[in-house]
Amino acid sequence: MLSCVAVVRSMTKQGCGMDLMQVVKQLERFAPTTLAEKWDNVGLLIEPAKDKVVQKILLTNDLTEPVMSEAVDKKVDLIISYHPPIFKPLTRITMGHWKERVVASCLVNNIALYSPHTAWDKIPGGVNDWLAQAVDIEDIKPLIPEPGAEPDTGSGRLVKTNMPLAKIVSALQEHIENDVHMACANGHNSNFNVKTVGICAGSGGSVLQGVPADLVITGEMSHHEVLDFNHNGTTVLLCNHSNSERGFLRQFQGQFVDRLKGACSVMISEMDTDPLTTKQRAN
Amino acid sequence: MLSCVAVVRSMTKQGCGMDLMQVVKQLERFAPTTLAEKWDNVGLLIEPAKDKVVQKILLTNDLTEPVMSEAVDKKVDLIISYHPPIFKPLTRITMGHWKERVVASCLVNNIALYSPHTAWDKIPGGVNDWLAQAVDIEDIKPLIPEPGAEPDTGSGRLVKTNMPLAKIVSALQEHIENDVHMACANGHNSNFNVKTVGICAGSGGSVLQGVPADLVITGEMSHHEVLDFNHNGTTVLLCNHSNSERGFLRQFQGQFVDRLKGACSVMISEMDTDPLTTKQRAN
Amino acid sequence: MLSCVAVVRSMTKQGCGMDLMQVVKQLERFAPTTLAEKWDNVGLLIEPAKDKVVQKILLTNDLTEPVMSEAVDKKVDLIISYHPPIFKPLTRITMGHWKERVVASCLVNNIALYSPHTAWDKIPGGVNDWLAQAVDIEDIKPLIPEPGAEPDTGSGRLVKTNMPLAKIVSALQEHIENDVHMACANGHNSNFNVKTVGICAGSGGSVLQGVPADLVITGEMSHHEVLDFNHNGTTVLLCNHSNSERGFLRQFQGQFVDRLKGACSVMISEMDTDPLTTKQRAN
Amino acid sequence: MLSCVAVVRSMTKQGCGMDLMQVVKQLERFAPTTLAEKWDNVGLLIEPAKDKVVQKILLTNDLTEPVMSEAVDKKVDLIISYHPPIFKPLTRITMGHWKERVVASCLVNNIALYSPHTAWDKIPGGVNDWLAQAVDIEDIKPLIPEPGAEPDTGSGRLVKTNMPLAKIVSALQEHIENDVHMACANGHNSNFNVKTVGICAGSGGSVLQGVPADLVITGEMSHHEVLDFNHNGTTVLLCNHSNSERGFLRQFQGQFVDRLKGACSVMISEMDTDPLTTKQRAN
Amino acid sequence: MLSCVAVVRSMTKQGCGMDLMQVVKQLERFAPTTLAEKWDNVGLLIEPAKDKVVQKILLTNDLTEPVMSEAVDKKVDLIISYHPPIFKPLTRITMGHWKERVVASCLVNNIALYSPHTAWDKIPGGVNDWLAQAVDIEDIKPLIPEPGAEPDTGSGRLVKTNMPLAKIVSALQEHIENDVHMACANGHNSNFNVKTVGICAGSGGSVLQGVPADLVITGEMSHHEVLDFNHNGTTVLLCNHSNSERGFLRQFQGQFVDRLKGACSVMISEMDTDPLTTKQRAN
Amino acid sequence: MLSCVAVVRSMTKQGCGMDLMQVVKQLERFAPTTLAEKWDNVGLLIEPAKDKVVQKILLTNDLTEPVMSEAVDKKVDLIISYHPPIFKPLTRITMGHWKERVVASCLVNNIALYSPHTAWDKIPGGVNDWLAQAVDIEDIKPLIPEPGAEPDTGSGRLVKTNMPLAKIVSALQEHIENDVHMACANGHNSNFNVKTVGICAGSGGSVLQGVPADLVITGEMSHHEVLDFNHNGTTVLLCNHSNSERGFLRQFQGQFVDRLKGACSVMISEMDTDPLTTKQRAN
Repeated sequence: MLSCVAVVRSMTKQGCGMDLMQVVKQLERFAPTTLAEKWDNVGLLIEPAKDKVVQKILLTNDLTEPVMSEAVDKKVDLIISYHPPIFKPLTRITMGHWKERVVASCLVNNIALYSPHTAWDKIPGGVNDWLAQAVDIEDIKPLIPEPGAEPDTGSGRLVKTNMPLAKIVSALQEHIENDVHMACANGHNSNFNVKTVGICAGSGGSVLQGVPADLVITGEMSHHEVLDFNHNGTTVLLCNHSNSERGFLRQFQGQFVDRLKGACSVMISEMDTDPLTTKQRAN
Repeated sequence: MLSCVAVVRSMTKQGCGMDLMQVVKQLERFAPTTLAEKWDNVGLLIEPAKDKVVQKILLTNDLTEPVMSEAVDKKVDLIISYHPPIFKPLTRITMGHWKERVVASCLVNNIALYSPHTAWDKIPGGVNDWLAQAVDIEDIKPLIPEPGAEPDTGSGRLVKTNMPLAKIVSALQEHIENDVHMACANGHNSNFNVKTVGICAGSGGSVLQGVPADLVITGEMSHHEVLDFNHNGTTVLLCNHSNSERGFLRQFQGQFVDRLKGACSVMISEMDTDPLTTKQRAN
Repeated sequence: MLSCVAVVRSMTKQGCGMDLMQVVKQLERFAPTTLAEKWDNVGLLIEPAKDKVVQKILLTNDLTEPVMSEAVDKKVDLIISYHPPIFKPLTRITMGHWKERVVASCLVNNIALYSPHTAWDKIPGGVNDWLAQAVDIEDIKPLIPEPGAEPDTGSGRLVKTNMPLAKIVSALQEHIENDVHMACANGHNSNFNVKTVGICAGSGGSVLQGVPADLVITGEMSHHEVLDFNHNGTTVLLCNHSNSERGFLRQFQGQFVDRLKGACSVMISEMDTDPLTTKQRAN
Repeated sequence: MLSCVAVVRSMTKQGCGMDLMQVVKQLERFAPTTLAEKWDNVGLLIEPAKDKVVQKILLTNDLTEPVMSEAVDKKVDLIISYHPPIFKPLTRITMGHWKERVVASCLVNNIALYSPHTAWDKIPGGVNDWLAQAVDIEDIKPLIPEPGAEPDTGSGRLVKTNMPLAKIVSALQEHIENDVHMACANGHNSNFNVKTVGICAGSGGSVLQGVPADLVITGEMSHHEVLDFNHNGTTVLLCNHSNSERGFLRQFQGQFVDRLKGACSVMISEMDTDPLTTKQRAN
Repeated sequence: MLSCVAVVRSMTKQGCGMDLMQVVKQLERFAPTTLAEKWDNVGLLIEPAKDKVVQKILLTNDLTEPVMSEAVDKKVDLIISYHPPIFKPLTRITMGHWKERVVASCLVNNIALYSPHTAWDKIPGGVNDWLAQAVDIEDIKPLIPEPGAEPDTGSGRLVKTNMPLAKIVSALQEHIENDVHMACANGHNSNFNVKTVGICAGSGGSVLQGVPADLVITGEMSHHEVLDFNHNGTTVLLCNHSNSERGFLRQFQGQFVDRLKGACSVMISEMDTDPLTTKQRAN
Repeated sequence: MLSCVAVVRSMTKQGCGMDLMQVVKQLERFAPTTLAEKWDNVGLLIEPAKDKVVQKILLTNDLTEPVMSEAVDKKVDLIISYHPPIFKPLTRITMGHWKERVVASCLVNNIALYSPHTAWDKIPGGVNDWLAQAVDIEDIKPLIPEPGAEPDTGSGRLVKTNMPLAKIVSALQEHIENDVHMACANGHNSNFNVKTVGICAGSGGSVLQGVPADLVITGEMSHHEVLDFNHNGTTVLLCNHSNSERGFLRQFQGQFVDRLKGACSVMISEMDTDPLTTKQRAN
């Protein structure tokens, strides 16, 4: 859970708010939703009324029910949830399923909802570039460059570096402010000097598949995927899914307040956190 | 458009209202949603809050935006819309599409939504049985009996009768209170004595396909389907889609007030009407 | 039903006839069958014998059994049926199904059969351009331009005009010589001044989908499609499927006689008519 | 090519003919078309007119153009073609493809067409039982018994016998009156004593797959299928496709004349023959 | 990694070995491969030669290359690998992919390979029942009972218990001899008294979906699956994939030595271990 | 069966052998496996160990068990089998299926396996060009030119010639050293002067479909394909599948020895032969 302080830069019209469609326009400028994957569901997902004015914005990685309650309590006007709360399309909106309750709560409480997901993953300076900052970067480029897009745009990242594995583990722990899970390739150990790193925030098994790297860093990966990487000479570091993404919100927070010229207050959720924690076996 | 008068029977606790889940239970008793087709989307589609109490119910065939405005103006608690307003599953709820606006309006205005659709088509005393009342019925049975269900349950109806075609046309016009479109089978004319009639409210092309009847009555049918029926010796009468269904609402209105023992007021929409009208060419 | 007069221009070799393959070549020049949709079945569908000579040609919209009888009675050599009588491929040809009877009748009576269908829809001066003549045309272009084809070729038409809705209704009734069915968009009325019209002969629901027009004119459309158009601000005028197409035959008749230089007589069917007629409810 | 003599038994009403539908009824009694495979296209495939009377019937294995000419020359009323001439459904009937020419010729010359195909394969006393007569039969049963059918009905046959391979080859040559192609299993030779034989007329690769037999006899089989059988210890004898089926026609001819009580004359085609002949390399 | 001691019970014919097919028969008696899922690939996967005699057997959860080297070094005759090393079917066997290298190594070193996978999951006393021993069991039954099988057979387990969550966590750590990852349901904490537990060794997301339990225990689960469980009131405990399965090998080892009556020596791999370990962030 | 003499040209380092990967590189230069069809499985299929040195190479059309035994007996290091012995991907490798036995035998006996299949069909100077040598070639080009490849590369061949049919039959018998099967087109006979020939080694039904040729030559073709060719005016000559391919091995043998500069000995299998032989019926 990130420490949560609303960032509102000093400005003339502080608190005046901004029309929702103007905020969406700024979000699109930051990261065009046309970049998102075909299977993804991004952009303005809930618009509770016409001509809605936005004063308070809440950033979250996952729009869980505790985060939803927080949004209602704080009377925010717009939630920006990195993961889209509507992914499987809805055939009904009832109190019987948590995702439907979240959607209903947004509408009933007049809160708009925007999700960027894979658009944020792909942009230069986006989620993957943030995750890559855990290592010393000598060179960085997308693993799958986006056809027809700006340079440095695309899925995943391939980083050139020059660090011992143990040092990368420590640096990554500090960067995500959390534990890390490691699977060493045959022949690697703490002193192994890592030259190339594949990066993919979230669930990176398919984007990283076959990447020629000493190390891959991602959020989660299945057992059989991990074995494949290790046997191809690649060590695996897992952060837990949302811990590989959440820290980007703080970087975004500052940038977005500037883009909005202070018209809105931008907060990071205090309730948003990765669900998993490791319980170490006592020795 | 049906004349719209709220039916509230004299009773002791008139106006007290009823819990939404109790109203849904009565709707399920009237026509179990398990009867609906696999491809259909029926039941409680919008539940805006827990423990909602229902005092006013609005019946409509289609939940168009004029009907939605009427519901808001009349402060109803529950809309029963024969056709499900959510059919193609929703990936977002914005002001950009009329079906999403309707869904948002229900939630923002705290109005629940229930759709029965093909469950009402199949039950004895349902929409198809209501449409069949246009002809003198000597015998009636479902075209596709529902496996494992009560007798007289199923899709479409096959009616035995004994009426000249011209008389059926007039009777159908009176029953649906509207114009009728006719395509005569080769060899049929106004005096042709009809013995068997296939009935299917709505869009009956596939349910009625191959039915061995002198006549079929449905709401709409494509040109090539009409030609097929005519060449198989079957005259076709079309009512327009919703005109083959809407009149059932008045029959349902009375029955449902009784089921609810007057706890809720049940109105029929004044704005609900078939979109199409025929403009006759001046001679 | 169009008035039926065989058009045979005065010429030197009147009555001499023309080889079937030469007639087909002229039909291909008029509208190349390569323009037809992938799912369509167009061109010479029945060729009963080699080296067939054509003296009499019958034009029809649908090759129904009454039209087939007319063709046999009039001893025609070639039927040009706008709609292909063979659409679902045949596994047998028996007396048990009307389409198989029609095919057998052509072969037994030595009558060839040609269908142009969507090739005629797409060409400049084809069926859609004919239907568009119902309105005052300020500008006209295809809705879906045909890649790699002549200009003005493609599916559907988008017309710029400047007429009150009521005047368009009258003009359309005169153009198709028949009744018209109307569904008004929310906010439209008889005086609404129409600026843009989407046109699609036949069943236009999918070609017209999402067209940004005040009005669409087509032959038939389903109830739920009509509601969608009306809620998107588009009024709908329906002609009945074949009434949106049939009138083109008269225009074609004259052009084709000229192309054949009078070698063949070209008749329009007297039995071809839309199967549906509207029976108005007496007030 | 089988010697062709029309079989007309002495009878009272010889030459009087029989209504086509009565002949079809007798064909259905001989082998119900409900037995045919789902993918097959059997039964009355061409019925050129109502109330057709049949006096002359022509039997053939394949309805090639030479056989079609023979049928026209001999003025037959009905062709019974074991293989269905319409297999891939027809989208048109022109002079451009031989199968369409055959269909047109049937209709133009008022000749009906019936195909039994896999229905004849499955019945007791059908094509597979005929082919099995090439070996001494100690026991015989279907390879794939037909669910719900008479005993001894089904696809393929499994025969118990006791003959040296060389003797079976000679007997099969005599039975089909033609050459035979052989692929010996590893370890088999002319003296190998065959105890079990899998039989499938026509193209038997899939029906015979995995059959536990010393030998399989069929019409044709692909190279890779032959290698599989040989490596599973099964010798393969191939007759050429139609040579494994054609001889059954003579057996059917006598039986069917009796069924029709002499009302029709039943001929075997003189032009029907397997297309392939082996040209031996001169030594 | 389990401590590895070959278990060879005292017996008369110790070291004599057993024919591979006899060992396979005993494995089938222990858990019939017909129980395995349709998508699985189980049973004898590599048989390097006919009439192979088995003296040494190595048990492993995953047949990684370190385990393969161990097997070669220890000159084992048969590897029993819980996970099938051949899962995606092979189009070639080269040195370029680790799974192909493992297969080649088995064949070149004359080592047979058997995988039981989901057959072992489903049997009573199998992998899921072993995992369930981590909690106090008041009642236990399969989540998806196997149709037509012995009682207590099927996928997953549903356990009734009565333990505080914190105590289950400790017990599970001891049972798997490793760390555990936890995601608490909204409202749960260490003192929450667990009454029902869903169990699924390996990757349990789909088998456990919708299970009405206070807690689920499995090997691995995706982030979005974990959020769903937590919002449905279910706490999640993850062991890492193979740690939820590996401990069963020791239980199997003893049972199988008895079944083989000491004819073979049965070892557990010293090199088999879950690839992932958690690196805790220093505070 | 081709006469089998190992060709080892006189050279300095005869017998020294060559690294397997170098041999594969020469095979790729001869015919790049990127040319093979998408559905094919070509290249190095079995590599039993790293750094394998190849001294003896065995060429075969099909890797049957007799050929496999020959390879073991002759202690070859590499088998080049035109047809890929692994086609349907393998889920296991046991003694229960002959293809699995062959794969196991390669690995156990340290023999590598390479298959070129459709890559050899397409190259200039490959299998199809070899088969075409049976006729006098005035002009030759691929039936389906390979996009982006060298000229004269592609599937099948179309040959211009000028020979009477009878002469082609004799020439083909000599070229393949075996019998030939013929199906004459309607109107063709021995004296028919052939001008165009379609060529496809193996099973040519689909590659040759619709080719405008007087004659097609291939290995095998189904009965219904043969009838189609004959009715389209094309005579068919069949060689048996592998007889249309095997002779190319002798041509390849000499070329490949030269490519390898004598480092390896290259033999043709003595056991490889087409499984089918024709047993003529005694007259």
